[in-house]
Amino acid sequence: MARIDGRANDQLRPIEIIPNFNRFAEGSCLIRCGNTQVLCCASVEERTPPHVPEGEGWVTAEYSMLPRANRERSKRDISKLKLSPRSAEIQRLVGRSLRACVDMTKLGERTITVDCDVLQGDGGTRTASVTGGYVALALALKKIGAEDALKTSVAAVSAGIVEEQPMLDLCYEEDSCAQVDLNCVMTAEGELVEIQGTGEGRSFTIAEQRELVDLCAKGIEALRTIQKQVLEG
Amino acid sequence: MARIDGRANDQLRPIEIIPNFNRFAEGSCLIRCGNTQVLCCASVEERTPPHVPEGEGWVTAEYSMLPRANRERSKRDISKLKLSPRSAEIQRLVGRSLRACVDMTKLGERTITVDCDVLQGDGGTRTASVTGGYVALALALKKIGAEDALKTSVAAVSAGIVEEQPMLDLCYEEDSCAQVDLNCVMTAEGELVEIQGTGEGRSFTIAEQRELVDLCAKGIEALRTIQKQVLEG
Amino acid sequence: MARIDGRANDQLRPIEIIPNFNRFAEGSCLIRCGNTQVLCCASVEERTPPHVPEGEGWVTAEYSMLPRANRERSKRDISKLKLSPRSAEIQRLVGRSLRACVDMTKLGERTITVDCDVLQGDGGTRTASVTGGYVALALALKKIGAEDALKTSVAAVSAGIVEEQPMLDLCYEEDSCAQVDLNCVMTAEGELVEIQGTGEGRSFTIAEQRELVDLCAKGIEALRTIQKQVLEG
Amino acid sequence: MARIDGRANDQLRPIEIIPNFNRFAEGSCLIRCGNTQVLCCASVEERTPPHVPEGEGWVTAEYSMLPRANRERSKRDISKLKLSPRSAEIQRLVGRSLRACVDMTKLGERTITVDCDVLQGDGGTRTASVTGGYVALALALKKIGAEDALKTSVAAVSAGIVEEQPMLDLCYEEDSCAQVDLNCVMTAEGELVEIQGTGEGRSFTIAEQRELVDLCAKGIEALRTIQKQVLEG
Amino acid sequence: MARIDGRANDQLRPIEIIPNFNRFAEGSCLIRCGNTQVLCCASVEERTPPHVPEGEGWVTAEYSMLPRANRERSKRDISKLKLSPRSAEIQRLVGRSLRACVDMTKLGERTITVDCDVLQGDGGTRTASVTGGYVALALALKKIGAEDALKTSVAAVSAGIVEEQPMLDLCYEEDSCAQVDLNCVMTAEGELVEIQGTGEGRSFTIAEQRELVDLCAKGIEALRTIQKQVLEG
Amino acid sequence: MARIDGRANDQLRPIEIIPNFNRFAEGSCLIRCGNTQVLCCASVEERTPPHVPEGEGWVTAEYSMLPRANRERSKRDISKLKLSPRSAEIQRLVGRSLRACVDMTKLGERTITVDCDVLQGDGGTRTASVTGGYVALALALKKIGAEDALKTSVAAVSAGIVEEQPMLDLCYEEDSCAQVDLNCVMTAEGELVEIQGTGEGRSFTIAEQRELVDLCAKGIEALRTIQKQVLEG
Repeated sequence: MARIDGRANDQLRPIEIIPNFNRFAEGSCLIRCGNTQVLCCASVEERTPPHVPEGEGWVTAEYSMLPRANRERSKRDISKLKLSPRSAEIQRLVGRSLRACVDMTKLGERTITVDCDVLQGDGGTRTASVTGGYVALALALKKIGAEDALKTSVAAVSAGIVEEQPMLDLCYEEDSCAQVDLNCVMTAEGELVEIQGTGEGRSFTIAEQRELVDLCAKGIEALRTIQKQVLEG
Repeated sequence: MARIDGRANDQLRPIEIIPNFNRFAEGSCLIRCGNTQVLCCASVEERTPPHVPEGEGWVTAEYSMLPRANRERSKRDISKLKLSPRSAEIQRLVGRSLRACVDMTKLGERTITVDCDVLQGDGGTRTASVTGGYVALALALKKIGAEDALKTSVAAVSAGIVEEQPMLDLCYEEDSCAQVDLNCVMTAEGELVEIQGTGEGRSFTIAEQRELVDLCAKGIEALRTIQKQVLEG
Repeated sequence: MARIDGRANDQLRPIEIIPNFNRFAEGSCLIRCGNTQVLCCASVEERTPPHVPEGEGWVTAEYSMLPRANRERSKRDISKLKLSPRSAEIQRLVGRSLRACVDMTKLGERTITVDCDVLQGDGGTRTASVTGGYVALALALKKIGAEDALKTSVAAVSAGIVEEQPMLDLCYEEDSCAQVDLNCVMTAEGELVEIQGTGEGRSFTIAEQRELVDLCAKGIEALRTIQKQVLEG
Repeated sequence: MARIDGRANDQLRPIEIIPNFNRFAEGSCLIRCGNTQVLCCASVEERTPPHVPEGEGWVTAEYSMLPRANRERSKRDISKLKLSPRSAEIQRLVGRSLRACVDMTKLGERTITVDCDVLQGDGGTRTASVTGGYVALALALKKIGAEDALKTSVAAVSAGIVEEQPMLDLCYEEDSCAQVDLNCVMTAEGELVEIQGTGEGRSFTIAEQRELVDLCAKGIEALRTIQKQVLEG
Repeated sequence: MARIDGRANDQLRPIEIIPNFNRFAEGSCLIRCGNTQVLCCASVEERTPPHVPEGEGWVTAEYSMLPRANRERSKRDISKLKLSPRSAEIQRLVGRSLRACVDMTKLGERTITVDCDVLQGDGGTRTASVTGGYVALALALKKIGAEDALKTSVAAVSAGIVEEQPMLDLCYEEDSCAQVDLNCVMTAEGELVEIQGTGEGRSFTIAEQRELVDLCAKGIEALRTIQKQVLEG
Repeated sequence: MARIDGRANDQLRPIEIIPNFNRFAEGSCLIRCGNTQVLCCASVEERTPPHVPEGEGWVTAEYSMLPRANRERSKRDISKLKLSPRSAEIQRLVGRSLRACVDMTKLGERTITVDCDVLQGDGGTRTASVTGGYVALALALKKIGAEDALKTSVAAVSAGIVEEQPMLDLCYEEDSCAQVDLNCVMTAEGELVEIQGTGEGRSFTIAEQRELVDLCAKGIEALRTIQKQVLEG
C-alpha cells in the first residue's frame, strides 16, 4: 500500500521551521510539518506562579487551534466558555515536555509561557507544538542570556498503524483512519520524556507498541537535526 | 516633526495581502500593514442564525489577538472566561462593515463567518481586519460561485492627531500617544460605512474631525487599489 | 414627512433629569428622554485599579438593560454567562466620555464607577447614559468635595437619516428603520469627545456625515442647558 | 425601646405601589416599602419550558439588585460570572409564591416571567418582590384576558426579634442586628404558602416562632388591602 | 393510609452515621437516612475569608449531588457552568445551621468547610446534610483540640402533609407528592435555628404549620441521640 | 529498598470491588485500591449525541474528585468555573478505554455515561476509574439485556520507577516522588488499549519503558480475575 502522499512508511513529511516569526516574543518560530502549521511563541515574565519554590523558575505551555485551522470551522473556546478538553490535554503534554529540558534553578524566578497556536492543522499538531515549542523556548533562553538553563532538547513525532501497516508521522487522512496512534517525545540523548498510545480501531500488542516507538525514535532523530540547524543558523 | 518611520503624514505603511494563506477556508488572506499582521479566514456554512429572514444569508465576523500579538503577553480570553470587551467592540464593527458589501438575498441561506486573528499587532488591527476581511469574503464568494452577492467593496484605515499634527495610518507608537484617533470604513464609491472617533488626550473640533476623515478617504483609495490587484491577480 | 411624534427634524424629545434618585449613591439621577429612562448612579471608592498611575484617580462606567426594558423581554447576561457585546461596546463609550471631563490628578486615588441601568429603552439609551452619567458624576464630585476635578461637561445625542431625511434624537421606531445612525459626545466648549456613525441600510457621504454632526451639535447645546439647570438647581 | 423610625412594633413601613411603571411589560409596578424600591415586570411568552406538561403554563421569577441598590456598591453578577447565591435563593422563593396563585391549566401554554429588580434596598426586598410581583402578575393576566387563571393572591412580609422584641417589617438597620428573622408568604385566605425563619444571633423557641408568624399575618392583611386598591383602582 | 415503607407517621427512617469515613478530612461521616446517603467532610484551614473580623473563625458549607444520586442522571454543575440554584439555597441553609453551633472567637482564625456530597438521594438530603455535617464538624473540632468552640449541637429533619396526613421524614416518593413540605433545624436545647416551609400543592394553615414543627421537634430529638452515640462512641 | 507498605515491587495493593453500590444507576460499583476509593456509576440514556452515526450507540465517561478526596481540600470545579484540566485529560482516557470494550452497533441508539467520582484518592485514581468503570459498564449492559455488546473487558494499572526501582501500582507517597510514571489499559486478551508514560524527574530509556509495560501487564491480569469474580458472583 502506498501512502497518500507517496512517502515511505518511515519517512517524515517535509519540515520547515522559520525562527523569529513574531517580532515581540522573546523566542518564536513557525513550524510547518507538511500542511500542519503551528506558531510557537515563548514569552518571559519575571515572576512565577505560587506553587513554584523560591529561587526556581517555571515553564508552561498553552495550545489552541484557530477556528478555521481544520477542514470545518469550529467555534472558539470563548464562545463555548470552555477550554476544549482536547486542548487541555495537549497543553499539559507540551508543558511537561518542555519542562524536561530546563534546569529550573538555573532559569531563576521567571516563567516562560510557550503559546502554540495552530494556524492550519493536518495531523500531528501536538507533536509539532513540542518540536516547535522547543525552538521558541531555546531562542527565548538565548535572548535573555539563560542558555545554561537548557539541559537537553526535546522533539516529538507520532507513528501509527494504518491498514495494518506501521507508519511514521501520520497526516490527517491517515490519522483519521488509523487503527493505532502513538506519539513519543524524546530528548537529545534519545530517551523518552512522554509516550502516549491509543488503540482507536482495535487494541494492539506489546510488540506493535515497541515497533511504533522505534519508528518514532527514528523520526525524532531527523527532527533534532533540523532543530539544531535552525538554532545554530 | 518627522514620523517615527519617516513616512509623510498622509502616507500609508507598506501593505501586503497574501491571498489563500489558509488552505481550508473558502476564502482567506494574511494582511500586513507595516508590522501589523492579521490572518483573515472566511468560512461558509449552509445555515443561518434564527434572526435572519428566510431566504436570506448572513455575514458575521470574529476578532481575536493571539496572546503574544503585542509587546507584552496577554492572557487568553478563555482563561478569563470573558471575551475581551475591546474584541467584542471590534468584531461588531468588522461584521457591520462586511455586511455592507453583501446583498443578503443573493447570498441565499448561508452564513459567512470571517475570523480575523491578529498574529502581530502594531496599531490599526481593526482597520486591517476590515480591509483583509473584505478580501477573504470576496474570495469565498468567488469560490462558492456567489460573486453576484457582492454589492461593493470596503476598506478601512485610521487617522489621528499626534503632537497636534494630523497623520494617516498610525502605528503603535503613534497610536499610544495620539490625542485623537479616528477610523473610517468606506465603500468602493468613497462613501462611509462606519466612522468612529475618540479624543484620547483632548477633545477635537468639528474642523479637525473633517480633516481626519479626508485623510482616511485618501488612504482608503490606495487600499482599494491593492485589494483589487490581489483579487484580480 | 412628519415624524412619528410630530417633532421637527431638529427637535429633541422631552428631557427630564431627576437628581438624587437613589439615596445611597454619592451622585445619581434618573434621566428621561422621551420614553427612554436610564438610572445613573455614581459610586466612589477610595482605591484605583492596578493600571492607574499612583496619585491619580479613575472613572469608569457600566451599562446594562433590565430584562424588560424593551418591547420584548431579553435574557439577563448572567443567564447567558456573557456580557452582551452591545453593552460592552456602550460602557466603553460611556467610560471614555466621562473620563474626558475629569482631571485625574485632582480626583486623587479614587475610582468613580457610573452605573447606567436602562429601566426602559426607546432609542438613544447610550447617549442618555452619557448625558445622565455626567450629572451623576458631577453630583458625586460635589458630594465628596472634589468639584475642582471637573474640567468640562459632556452630553450626547444621536442623529440619523430616516427615509432620506436627517433627524435629531431618534426614538426606537425611527432608529429601527434608520438608514444612517450617528452619535456624538461633546464638551461644554462644543468640541467632540466621541463620534460614532454607522450606515445601517446604506452607506453615506461625507457631506451627510457633516450634516448629522451639525444636528447633534445643536441638540447637545440644549442638553447642556438642562444639565446646568439640574446641577445648579 | 422605640424603633429607629418611630413605628409601633406591629406597624408596616409606608407602602406605595405604582402600577404600570414600565410601558412595555404586560404587567408591572414599582413597589416602595419605606426606602426599599423594587421594579416588578411581568412578561408573557407564548411557550413553556420543557418540564411543563402539555396544555399547562408556567410562572417563574428572577430577582436581582442593581449594583448601587445598597449602602456599598456591589459588583454585577456578570462580572463575577456567578448568579449571587442569595439571588438564586430569593428568586426560587418568589417563583414558588407566585405559582401558588395561578391555575396552570387555565393559564394555558404560556410562560410568565416576573422580573424583580431592586433599585434601592433597605430591608425586606424579597417580601416586597413577592407583594409587588403579585401585582405585576395580576396586571399581566388581566392584559392578556386570563384573569380566571388567578386562584388567589399572595403577599409577604418579614418579622424579627430585635433586642429581644418581636417587630414587624424590619428595615435595614433593624435587619442587620436582628436576632431572629422570619418571613411569611400568605394567600388571600390567610393561609401560608412559604415560611422561612433564621436565627441569626441566637436560636429561638417554638413560641417565639409562632408569635412572629402572627405578626406577619397581621401585616400581610394590610398589604392585601393595598394590593386590591391598586388592582381595582 | 399506610406509608410506602410501613412507617408510622411520626417515625424516622433508619438512620446510620459512620464516623471518619474519609481518612484525610479532619472530621467526616457518611450519614444514611433510609436510602439517602450523604458524605460529610469537614476541612480545617488556618485562614479566614475577608469579611470575618480579626481574631474570629468561620464555618461554611458546600452541598452537591453526584450526577447519578437520583433516579435520573443529571448533568454536573461544571458542564452547565452554573451552580445549581437548589444547591446554592441548600448550602446557605447548611452553613447558617452549622455556624449556629460554633463560638467563632473560640474557634480562632480558622475556616471550617463542611462538604456535603450526596451519593444517593431519596428525600431529605438537606436535613441529612445538617445532621451529618454537625457530626463531621464536631469530629474536626475534637481533632484540632477546639471542642470548647462548640456551643450546642444541631440536627434537622423534614415533615410534610401527604394526602392530607402530616408525616415525619418524607422519603422521595412521599416528598414528590407532598402538599406541604417543611423542615426544621434545631439545637440541643430544642430551639429552632432554621425553619423553611413550602406549600407545594396547596397553601396551609398556621395550625398545620405548628403541627409539622411539632413533628420535626420529635424527630430531631431522636437524631440528637444518635449523633451523641456516634460522637461519644 | 522496601516499599512504604511492605509490598513486593510487582505486587498490587489490596483491591475490593463492591458491585451495585448505588441503587439508581443501571450499573455501579465502589472500587477500592488500597486507600483509593472511586464510585463508578453507569447511566443509560435512550439517545445519542449528534456526532454518533444512526443506529449506533455511545459510551462516555466523566471523572471528578470530591473536594476532600486528597490530603488538602481543593476547590470545586464549579467555584472556579473550569473543569480541572487534569480531570478533562483523565475522563477522555477513561472514555476511550471503555469504548474499546463495546460494539456500538449492538449497543444500539443509547448513550452510557460512566461517572467516576473519587471519594478518596491515594494514587492510581485514573486506573481505578478504568477498572471500576468497566465493572459498572458491564453491570449496566447486563441490566438492559445488552451483554452481547461487550466485545472484551478492560482493566488498568500504573507502574513507575521510584528511587531507580521499577514498581507496580504506585500509592500516593510513591507516585509523588516517582521518576517515571506509566500506565496501561489492557483488554482481556492482554492487548493494549492505552499507554501513557511520563518522565517526571528524568527521561527514561526504551528498555525501561518496556519493563514498566511488562509490570503493568502482570498487574492487569490479576485485576481481570477480580473483575470476573465480581461480575460472575
